[in-house]
Amino acid sequence: MKAIAVEPGAGEPTLVERPRPEPEAGEALVRTLRVGVDGTDHEVIAGHHGEVPPGEDRLVLGHEAVGVVADPNGTDLEEGEYVVPTVRRPPDGTNEYFERGEPDMAPEGEYLERGIVGAHGFMAEYFTSPAETLVPIPERLAHLGFLVEPISVSEKAIEHAVAARSAFEWEPESALVLGNGSLGLLTLAMLEEVLGFDRTYCLGRRDRPDPTIDIIDELGATYVDSRETPVPEIPDEHESVDFVYEATGYAKHAFEPIEALAPNGVAALVGVPEPWSFEIDGGRLHREFVLHNKALVGSVNSHRGHFEAATDTLEGLPEWLFDDLVTGVYDLSEYERAFETGDEIVKTAVEFAPVR
Amino acid sequence: MKAIAVEPGAGEPTLVERPRPEPEAGEALVRTLRVGVDGTDHEVIAGHHGEVPPGEDRLVLGHEAVGVVADPNGTDLEEGEYVVPTVRRPPDGTNEYFERGEPDMAPEGEYLERGIVGAHGFMAEYFTSPAETLVPIPERLAHLGFLVEPISVSEKAIEHAVAARSAFEWEPESALVLGNGSLGLLTLAMLEEVLGFDRTYCLGRRDRPDPTIDIIDELGATYVDSRETPVPEIPDEHESVDFVYEATGYAKHAFEPIEALAPNGVAALVGVPEPWSFEIDGGRLHREFVLHNKALVGSVNSHRGHFEAATDTLEGLPEWLFDDLVTGVYDLSEYERAFETGDEIVKTAVEFAPVR
Repeated sequence: MKAIAVEPGAGEPTLVERPRPEPEAGEALVRTLRVGVDGTDHEVIAGHHGEVPPGEDRLVLGHEAVGVVADPNGTDLEEGEYVVPTVRRPPDGTNEYFERGEPDMAPEGEYLERGIVGAHGFMAEYFTSPAETLVPIPERLAHLGFLVEPISVSEKAIEHAVAARSAFEWEPESALVLGNGSLGLLTLAMLEEVLGFDRTYCLGRRDRPDPTIDIIDELGATYVDSRETPVPEIPDEHESVDFVYEATGYAKHAFEPIEALAPNGVAALVGVPEPWSFEIDGGRLHREFVLHNKALVGSVNSHRGHFEAATDTLEGLPEWLFDDLVTGVYDLSEYERAFETGDEIVKTAVEFAPVR
Repeated sequence: MKAIAVEPGAGEPTLVERPRPEPEAGEALVRTLRVGVDGTDHEVIAGHHGEVPPGEDRLVLGHEAVGVVADPNGTDLEEGEYVVPTVRRPPDGTNEYFERGEPDMAPEGEYLERGIVGAHGFMAEYFTSPAETLVPIPERLAHLGFLVEPISVSEKAIEHAVAARSAFEWEPESALVLGNGSLGLLTLAMLEEVLGFDRTYCLGRRDRPDPTIDIIDELGATYVDSRETPVPEIPDEHESVDFVYEATGYAKHAFEPIEALAPNGVAALVGVPEPWSFEIDGGRLHREFVLHNKALVGSVNSHRGHFEAATDTLEGLPEWLFDDLVTGVYDLSEYERAFETGDEIVKTAVEFAPVR
C-alpha cells in the first residue's frame, strides 16, 4: 500500500510503498479516508520535532485522520463504521496514564505519538489501531473527520482552563485567540458558535484581503493586527478579556496574556516554541497575576473524551466555515499540494480514499 | 479607646486615641483580643501599599484579628463568642462579588480592605463589623485566632490550585514552599500535617542556626538554601515537585517554578512584588509549560469559607509549631516590639485584651 513518509530533516515527504498492516488481537483494520496536515507535520518534516520508530529510517506522517473500519477483527467496532483515531500510544504495553484513559497527561518517555514521536502515523492507505483508540463519528461528518483531532486539542485546553476557574463563579463573556492558523480559527469558531462567548477577538499579522481575516469577520469576531496592536495593548484598544487561547507558539504569548486578561481570567497555552530569551517586567506581571487572581494553563494532546466532545463541536459549527477553512483536499496522486504553505492556504488534507 | 495607626510613609505606627465605635444595624461590637503583624503591615507602614480612608490622615492598622463579641447588637452572634473578622468590605453598599460571598474575587476599586486599603483595621481596643464578616472560632483556639486570616489566604490559594488540576486524576506527593516567613511556614505545616504531602521542601536564604530552619526541620521538611540551590536547580538537587507555593514576593519566583514543577504540576502565587524587569528563557519555559500540562494560579485574599477551613486547619496543626512560630505577643504598652523585624522574629501579635 502507499504511504506518505518523511526522513527527518529531508525537508519534504515522499510516497513510499509499505505492506498493508495486519491487525493484532484487539485491533481493527481501518481504510484511511482523509488525513489533515498541520504545523506539527511541518515541524516533523523540517526535522525540528518528532522521532522515527526504532530501527527505521522513515516516519509515516499523519495524526489527524478519519477512516472507515475495513475489518473489525473481533472487536466491538462494525465494518463500515467511520472512526477517528487518537494519537498517543504506550511505549511498552501500558502504563498508569493509559490505564486511566489519560494518555494526554503522560510525561515525556511515557508515550509514543502516531505520526510524530516514535510510531508511524495514519498517512497510509490502511492502518491498524486498538479498538479503544478508534472514536466512532457519524457518517455525515466523515468528510470533516480529520478536524476532530485538532478540535480535541482545544476541547482539552478549554476544559483545563475552565477547571482552573471552577473554585468560584466564573461567567466569561470575552475571549481572545492568539493565532489565525487553522487551530486558532477552529477554536475561535468554537468560542463564538458553540461556547456562546459574547465578544471574541483573533490576533494575526496579515493584511487584508486575507482568507483567515475573512473567516474572522464572518464569525463576527474582531481581527486584531499584532503589528498595530500588540497583546498588552488590547485592553486599551478593545477590552480586557476573560479567556485567552494561545495558538501561535510565539514565546512572548505565554506571558503577554497576563496583561490582556480581565480580573479572574485564564489563558490556555498550546503552542510549543523553541528556546528564546527576552526581557519581561516580571515584577509587574507577577503583581498583576496575584492581585487579580489570574491563571495560566499549559495543555498538550487530548484523550478519547475530548475526541468525543470534538465530534459534537464539529456538528455545531456552520457548514460555510468548513468551505472557507478547508482550502484543499488532495488525492494521493497530488499529495505534495497538501504540504504547500502560503497566505491563501488555511487547512489541507490528503485523501486516501473517496468519502461516500 | 487606644488604636495603632500609621501615617503612610511615616515609617512607624503610633498609638492614637479614637472614640469607641458604635455598631450600626447588622453589625456587632467586638472587643479585640489579639492582632497579628505581617509583611503587608510593614508595606503599609513603609508607604509602599495601602490607602488611608477618605478625609483622614491616618490608617488604623491590622487585618489579622481575633476578638470576642462585646455586643451582638441584635445579630445572630452571642456575647462572649470568639470571632475572626474577614478583611474586605464593599466600597459602596455592596456589589456582585460581595453578594455572592466572593469578595476575594473583586477587582481593584470594588473593595476596601480593613487595615490596608481605605478602611480602618482591627488594631484598636474595639471594632465593629457586619455579623456575616465575623467567623466564630472555638474558645480553645482564641489565643491563636490571629493566625486564621493568614491561613485562610493559603486555603484559597491551595483551593484554586487544586481546582486547576481537577480535570484529571492528580495525586500530588511533593510540595515546595518558596519563602520561610510566617506565611510560608504555616503553609508548609498545612501541607505536611493536614494535607498529607509525602515530601515537602521550603526555600529560604538563611544560615543555620535559625528559628525558621528549626521549624522546617521539625516539620520533617527539607530546607533549601536558595543561595546554594536556586529554584530551577531543585529538580536536579532534590526532585521535581507536584505543587509550588510562592510566598516570597520575589518576581523571579513567578516564573522559575515552571522549571521546578513535575509534569502536570501547579504553582500558586501569592506574593506581590514591585515592577522589576529581567531576562527569562521564555521559549523554553513556554514549551515546558505546554508539553507537561503545567499550571500557574495567582491568588489574593480569601472569603468566609476559607476562614472556616482555616479554623479547621489551625486545629489540626501541632501545638509545638505555635510555640516556635509565635515569637512574641506584646501588650499594648509595648506594641512597638510587635513591629520589630529580625532573623530571630518569626510571627508577632499585639494583645489588646488578655485571652482567658
